[in-house]
Amino acid sequence: MTKLHWEDFETGAVTLYGPRLVTREEIVAFAAEFDPQPMHLDEAAASGTILGGLGASGWQSCCLMMRMICDSFLLNSTSMGSPGVEEVRWLKPLRPGTNIRLRATVADKRESKSKPDMGLVKFFFELIDDAGTPLTTQTITLMLGRREPRP
Amino acid sequence: MTKLHWEDFETGAVTLYGPRLVTREEIVAFAAEFDPQPMHLDEAAASGTILGGLGASGWQSCCLMMRMICDSFLLNSTSMGSPGVEEVRWLKPLRPGTNIRLRATVADKRESKSKPDMGLVKFFFELIDDAGTPLTTQTITLMLGRREPRP
Repeated sequence: MTKLHWEDFETGAVTLYGPRLVTREEIVAFAAEFDPQPMHLDEAAASGTILGGLGASGWQSCCLMMRMICDSFLLNSTSMGSPGVEEVRWLKPLRPGTNIRLRATVADKRESKSKPDMGLVKFFFELIDDAGTPLTTQTITLMLGRREPRP
Repeated sequence: MTKLHWEDFETGAVTLYGPRLVTREEIVAFAAEFDPQPMHLDEAAASGTILGGLGASGWQSCCLMMRMICDSFLLNSTSMGSPGVEEVRWLKPLRPGTNIRLRATVADKRESKSKPDMGLVKFFFELIDDAGTPLTTQTITLMLGRREPRP
């Protein structure tokens, strides 16, 4: 299969991946390892918090998005990594039993000033629930190899 | 032990937590679950990438920071969560065998306009290595309960 290069991403393009079921077990296991706040660990404790019930750590949402990004296109691309994340917004809780999808929008793309064989693609990623409601959004720039180096 | 409230965080305060050893095993296990790019999974494959050798997923650095934030002060605070992250910068690879520390700087604090019993604290978190070099940095605002509600 031909790898996706920088040239293959068009500004404005929107793609949808998934679904993937998120279980209570994985929410609690992730929280126990990385974010052991009561609102991510226990229904009774969570009911009195801002989440109003058990919900995943925001970082777990980011990690689940990353896995979906990998499986949907990144592992079949010339990706060279990322310098960082511009913004993450945790809009609504990710509940046990939710079927999540990833919506990927190509927000912008540009050439690299320093590397002729590299280009940059800015993505707006949304983690959405069964009803299509965004739960977590993320803006991130990926570095991708070019099919044809910049002249 | 008295819980930390919004009033207890002073703009400009810097605190240091850790260390915590990061092993090759946990780097590979995390990548296999959430970010299975070759540069996070295999030394040989990683040597030809932008990381120049095996390094942790950037999201793992974020998760490790979160755990250190929890253990250092968050679990002993009136934290009510966070609306999201303003910026994450992946500056240098996190290598197996690194003893990481968390440096937490209170960048700013303000009252909540809508909630008299809540305040906001903006943190600048740095994940630093044995030599004190920042590997990953993060700017995030946390919502905290106040000891005395806003008059």
